[in-house]
Amino acid sequence: VNVELINTGSELMLGRIVNSHQAWLCRRLADAGFLVNRQVAIPDNASAIRGALCDALKHAELVLMTGGLGPTSDDLTRDVVAELLGRRLIEDPDARANIEGYFSARQRPMPVRVLVQAMVPEGAIVLPNRNGTAPGLAIEIPERRFGPHASWLFLLPGPPRELHPMFAERVLPLLNEHFTASESFHCTTLRTCGLGESWVEDRLAPLFPPLVDRGLDVGYCARVGEVDIRLAARGPAGPDLLAKAADIVRSRLGEYIYGTDDDSLESVVIRLATERRARLAVAESCTGGLLANRLTDVPGASAVFWGGWVVYDNESKSSELGVNPGVFEEHGAVSEPCALAMAEGALARSGATHALAITGIAGPAGGTPQRPVGTVFIALAAPGIATVAREFRNPFDRSAFKYVTTQQALELLRRRLIAADPG
Amino acid sequence: VNVELINTGSELMLGRIVNSHQAWLCRRLADAGFLVNRQVAIPDNASAIRGALCDALKHAELVLMTGGLGPTSDDLTRDVVAELLGRRLIEDPDARANIEGYFSARQRPMPVRVLVQAMVPEGAIVLPNRNGTAPGLAIEIPERRFGPHASWLFLLPGPPRELHPMFAERVLPLLNEHFTASESFHCTTLRTCGLGESWVEDRLAPLFPPLVDRGLDVGYCARVGEVDIRLAARGPAGPDLLAKAADIVRSRLGEYIYGTDDDSLESVVIRLATERRARLAVAESCTGGLLANRLTDVPGASAVFWGGWVVYDNESKSSELGVNPGVFEEHGAVSEPCALAMAEGALARSGATHALAITGIAGPAGGTPQRPVGTVFIALAAPGIATVAREFRNPFDRSAFKYVTTQQALELLRRRLIAADPG
Repeated sequence: VNVELINTGSELMLGRIVNSHQAWLCRRLADAGFLVNRQVAIPDNASAIRGALCDALKHAELVLMTGGLGPTSDDLTRDVVAELLGRRLIEDPDARANIEGYFSARQRPMPVRVLVQAMVPEGAIVLPNRNGTAPGLAIEIPERRFGPHASWLFLLPGPPRELHPMFAERVLPLLNEHFTASESFHCTTLRTCGLGESWVEDRLAPLFPPLVDRGLDVGYCARVGEVDIRLAARGPAGPDLLAKAADIVRSRLGEYIYGTDDDSLESVVIRLATERRARLAVAESCTGGLLANRLTDVPGASAVFWGGWVVYDNESKSSELGVNPGVFEEHGAVSEPCALAMAEGALARSGATHALAITGIAGPAGGTPQRPVGTVFIALAAPGIATVAREFRNPFDRSAFKYVTTQQALELLRRRLIAADPG
Repeated sequence: VNVELINTGSELMLGRIVNSHQAWLCRRLADAGFLVNRQVAIPDNASAIRGALCDALKHAELVLMTGGLGPTSDDLTRDVVAELLGRRLIEDPDARANIEGYFSARQRPMPVRVLVQAMVPEGAIVLPNRNGTAPGLAIEIPERRFGPHASWLFLLPGPPRELHPMFAERVLPLLNEHFTASESFHCTTLRTCGLGESWVEDRLAPLFPPLVDRGLDVGYCARVGEVDIRLAARGPAGPDLLAKAADIVRSRLGEYIYGTDDDSLESVVIRLATERRARLAVAESCTGGLLANRLTDVPGASAVFWGGWVVYDNESKSSELGVNPGVFEEHGAVSEPCALAMAEGALARSGATHALAITGIAGPAGGTPQRPVGTVFIALAAPGIATVAREFRNPFDRSAFKYVTTQQALELLRRRLIAADPG
């Protein structure tokens, strides 16, 4: 199946936002066996939309287009498609009811123009939108209308929280009904933390050639402090190839692998903590709440996460966690003794089974020759075990610093949790 | 000038990475007066590269292509371009010297295959790469070769740290030299919070037509609880058009506008707090540290941010903030009395000038008929002023719930800070 993705949005062309749909949709489509051959972004104007649609329908059997279905004057997709296909726009009663229900549930007055979103080209399949007002549309286009083949055209809303569930619940089932994906596509990603990309590739690359000869595709994706190893293969031998390749990766990288596919370090930590009936507390200085935020991004975190402190200045480190002010005078707030005292204070105040503490210099200001920007100390305290602290140097911009530092803290906790027997 | 951007990379089509080049290049090009009309992503194979290039050169006078210039077997751009243009590849001595210098400076042995990167199509302008080994290439293509017009084709390396300086130092000067006719481009975005997209457009759209007739372009970009109004215009009248349009937006939306362009609510709040010598503390339940994290994303936050608490369970709300356990029994933890007690407890413990407190149900579990998932109470306490609390209903998925809730809290604080005179 030849697949093309079209993203509309003038703000994309102005470079004011990142096109997150491209990665999200390409990934889900690839995982379902529909590899996108071409992705196109165009501005919100009728001639660009018309041109891109004609072009895509000429050579693709499956065309997905995002955006331009809303109620405002720059939402033109609905009209352009109806005109291009020579179909009337008619009101869909279910779509209208959904729009009216959306506003009444929120006790907000409904501007009458939002009802334009209930107008759909005759013959289109209406895909209900459970997080918004604009329904998606699926339209079958007969052969020889644009290209030699028939095509399916999917028009999908732009907001991710409307698009994502609609794609999973409505689009994928229709795709599986109307297309027999040529060959099954299999893909798995093993995720590691704390290794460099060339180190990983040097360890693994010599072992893959026999599997690559049989159709394995290997990709490495590196971020700061993290390397993903992506394994992919097509056809019936795919699962076996992936299993053999994953065994190789596991045998060489072992404990550095924290998870697979959509696992995050925080989701793995919450899972391990739940299995071991742990209770977690965190005390953050330079990461400013990011560690707590990541842990509480995981549904079910409340079962194991007691809470935490953002102790951004020395006074709060003392008043909330009981850090002796002498520590600041003797060692400074960015020091191993301070990290240890913060972790122990957090453990004592919370009654948790594990307390993580972070203190460091995020920058851009605040560095000294002895403690340059990027210096960080992470400590982990647990009842009955000596509190440990580790020093890291993360000389990155502010947001990368915060992210990498929380990765290191989560990894420290993950290894401790793994070492403990599950309850 | 008709501009097209082509990004090559099979990992883009698999959706395993986000196409960061699109936003980065589109923005820099737009700011220099070159609005991209179409952006295309294709896999690393010769026929896709050939097809996309022919297509683009047919209708664009300026084509930029990223990726595929490296030394490995999936780097095909150089060969495909030479073949398509019927030009020989010849070794460029400066490019070769740069590659050799790159390895000798790093005291690393030079694999001989990297020298392929010094091969350039005859007649191309070589753009030195000061952070890598693959030079960029600029090629002038005469009229009637692909389209009726002449075109410039730029081939640029994929890694951002090679692409970004090359674009600024080499590509922009060439563009300004060869496309003198292009008009200046002006763009500003006004950012609002707390309004719906149709409400905003209903208020503004009737007032714009006289300016649109003179060349103003207006776009609306909506996220949950936020609407950006993007104003753009070309040519010498542009600044005046934008100023007049911005005046209209300000007169109609007034206090709902929290900032412009790259402003975020957190950066505006930190700026206002700094000007007013405020000191901020936060107490978060359901947002789990996101509010503190957003505030500490802003460089200089430490001057005004005391810190905060993530009080994820009732016990910590009492032990850390002094919330009377009777409040939970009588009203529940997700209630106005609890939010008020949290804010007042945070104010008292921290000695801050402003304390924000958030309590709510992020979901997916934990809702009741009376307090469904998405219910949230936000309170703001300040010395000498009655503590206020507001109730919101944010029935979104977990991450959207957390984000929208922190927007509402920041907006409450922004309005309070604005109302206070700057010190």
